Order: sequence, then structure tokens, then C-alpha cells
Amino acid sequence: MNVIADLCIIPMGVGVSVSKYVAECERILQNAGLHTQLHAYGTNIEGEWDDVFAAIKACHEHIHAMGAPRISTTLKFGTRVDRKQTMEDKIQSVQSKL
Amino acid sequence: MNVIADLCIIPMGVGVSVSKYVAECERILQNAGLHTQLHAYGTNIEGEWDDVFAAIKACHEHIHAMGAPRISTTLKFGTRVDRKQTMEDKIQSVQSKL
Amino acid sequence: MNVIADLCIIPMGVGVSVSKYVAECERILQNAGLHTQLHAYGTNIEGEWDDVFAAIKACHEHIHAMGAPRISTTLKFGTRVDRKQTMEDKIQSVQSKL
Amino acid sequence: MNVIADLCIIPMGVGVSVSKYVAECERILQNAGLHTQLHAYGTNIEGEWDDVFAAIKACHEHIHAMGAPRISTTLKFGTRVDRKQTMEDKIQSVQSKL
Repeated sequence: MNVIADLCIIPMGVGVSVSKYVAECERILQNAGLHTQLHAYGTNIEGEWDDVFAAIKACHEHIHAMGAPRISTTLKFGTRVDRKQTMEDKIQSVQSKL
Repeated sequence: MNVIADLCIIPMGVGVSVSKYVAECERILQNAGLHTQLHAYGTNIEGEWDDVFAAIKACHEHIHAMGAPRISTTLKFGTRVDRKQTMEDKIQSVQSKL
Repeated sequence: MNVIADLCIIPMGVGVSVSKYVAECERILQNAGLHTQLHAYGTNIEGEWDDVFAAIKACHEHIHAMGAPRISTTLKFGTRVDRKQTMEDKIQSVQSKL
Repeated sequence: MNVIADLCIIPMGVGVSVSKYVAECERILQNAGLHTQLHAYGTNIEGEWDDVFAAIKACHEHIHAMGAPRISTTLKFGTRVDRKQTMEDKIQSVQSKL
């Protein structure tokens, strides 16, 4: 089952600047071979369900290992069985109507 | 790694009424032995990371099997390594300050 | 336009414990005359659109005034024009199927 | 108060394809003079709080007027009072660490 997700991880108890944690997650996601796209409020991820969620778990484990005592994450994710659709397809589908 | 989550699953392409799909997810989460609490915009879930995410995957698979061609889910989830905290602890912590 | 929302406010740069900020938001929402229900990962809110969003703005302003330099909030909100539906209706609709 | 938001609007009861509704929202946000960036699971928005939330309300009203009986939206939004930060700043802050 393919999934398109949008991941926003917020480490808590480490001050206001969290970009170094987000950068580490980017590395984890990319090393997992996932298709990703960083934006201003999270990261789009596309891949097989188990691969995507294993990488997200690795992100939480790694951020805790970096010293963050608490993490609160917001994740949107979509699956569909009627047809295949990539992240680029979704953006193109909207832009073609603009 | 223990996780407290808040799950909101939206089946698409099946009309405006989605409560039968949500009810099926409640059954899946409870049959998985997870601690859950339904509210007006989702379900709180507490458990071991792998158990929680396996149950969420089963929810997506089951809703598709029920006939929903597309699903979009919003999930919040939190982990902490500084101390143990249950869903009841979180609510009590706020209510003690009211 | 009536709205049912689910609010989860995360103050950043103030340490791991955020319940005092959440408690202040509860007070603001209740003083605004909104119907609310606290749960383990946020607060359900029901009311007129403008009232709900004015109260949420007041929460952000107040949390900053309390000393939090940064806030990241996740909000789900739903509107419908086919029929009236309360927070209790939504829960009852699922529970009647369990 | 400046806000950076991430908007994901899901019209319900209109079938699986929702890109025409998303495209209309893009127009509303742009006509409101907001800085926006479409991605594969939503739209980043930057602007003054009142302008951003007025535009989001207009999106809900317009989608209902287009015929969608129900809408469920997930919105993330952040404010900070310690310093100014644009959407580009946030992305650059992460990319500089990669």
C-alpha cells in the first residue's frame, strides 16, 4: 500500500530553534530511499507504507537520542486504491486548474 | 517506545456520513488491546509504538476493503523519554490548573 | 457558519511541560462562551466561526504574553451545510454503531 | 501578528477528486494578497493573522457554495514573537544544515 504523507515533527524542551532536528529527519528519510519534498511547514513523503512509517519511527528515536526529551508530531497521510497517484500528480492536478 | 496519538480518519468518495467507518476503526483499535478514547474529532490512542501503528495500518486496509477508494488521515502523536505519562495524566495535568 | 474544531497548541521554547499554557487556553475558550471538551491530545470546540477563531487568536496572544516566544498549533475544523450536528451528535453517531 | 500556516482542506460528499476545490482556494488565497506555496499535501500561507484567517473562512464558504455539503480541514499554524521569519527562512534554515 503506497502512502503520501506530510510530516511535521516538533521537538519540545530544546528551545525555539528546531531546524537541526528537522535536518536530521530529512537525512533519515532520504537514506531510507523515500521520495521527499521539504516545505515551510513540514516534509512531503511518498513510499510504501511500511517504509514510510519505519522511517518516521527512526526520526523519533533519533531526535530523542539527540537530546530532545519530548516530541509532538503532526502527520497527514493518504492512501487510495482507485488509482496510482504521485506527489507530482497531486500538485499538477491542482495547477492544471489554475 | 510508548506513544499517545490522536487519530482522525476521513474516508473520501463515500458520501458525507463516515461514522460506520470510524466505528469499524474503534473495533480494530480495541481488538488490538490499545487504550482508546473517542472524542468529537478523532480518537485518542495509547500504546507501544509498533502496536499503535500496526492498528492504524489495519484501519486503512479495512476501510478500503469496506469500499472507500481514498482515505485522508490526520494523526498527532507524542513520545517522551523523560518520564512516563498516560492519557489520563495529560488531562489531569491541565485540569489541576483550572 | 457553525464549526466544530479540535485545537492542539504547542508552546515552544518553554520546556517540556506545557499544561499551564493549555489551562489558560481552556479559560479563554470557556470565557468566550464556547462549548469545549478537553481530551488527551487537544480540545474540542463548538461555536460560531468568528467566535471560535477570535478565541483561538486570543489564545496565541495570551500564550505569547505569558512568555512563550514561539507557538505551533494544529487545528482540525469541520463545517457542514447539509444539517446541524453537535459534538455530542458526532460521538453518538459512532457509538450507536459499536 | 504574522502567521505561517499550512492548509489542507478536504471537501466531503463530492467524490474522490477534490483538486477543483483546492484550485479555487488557491485563487482565493492569492486574491487576498497572501504569500502561498502549494505542495503535495496542502498549501503554505504567510501573512497577517486576520488576513490569513479571513481567507480561510472565504475558502470554506466558497467550497460550500460550489456544492460540497461538508468540509474537514487540517490547519497547522505558527506564530513567534522572538524574531521575524518567512517561509523561505524556515526552508533555508533546514537546508543549510543538510
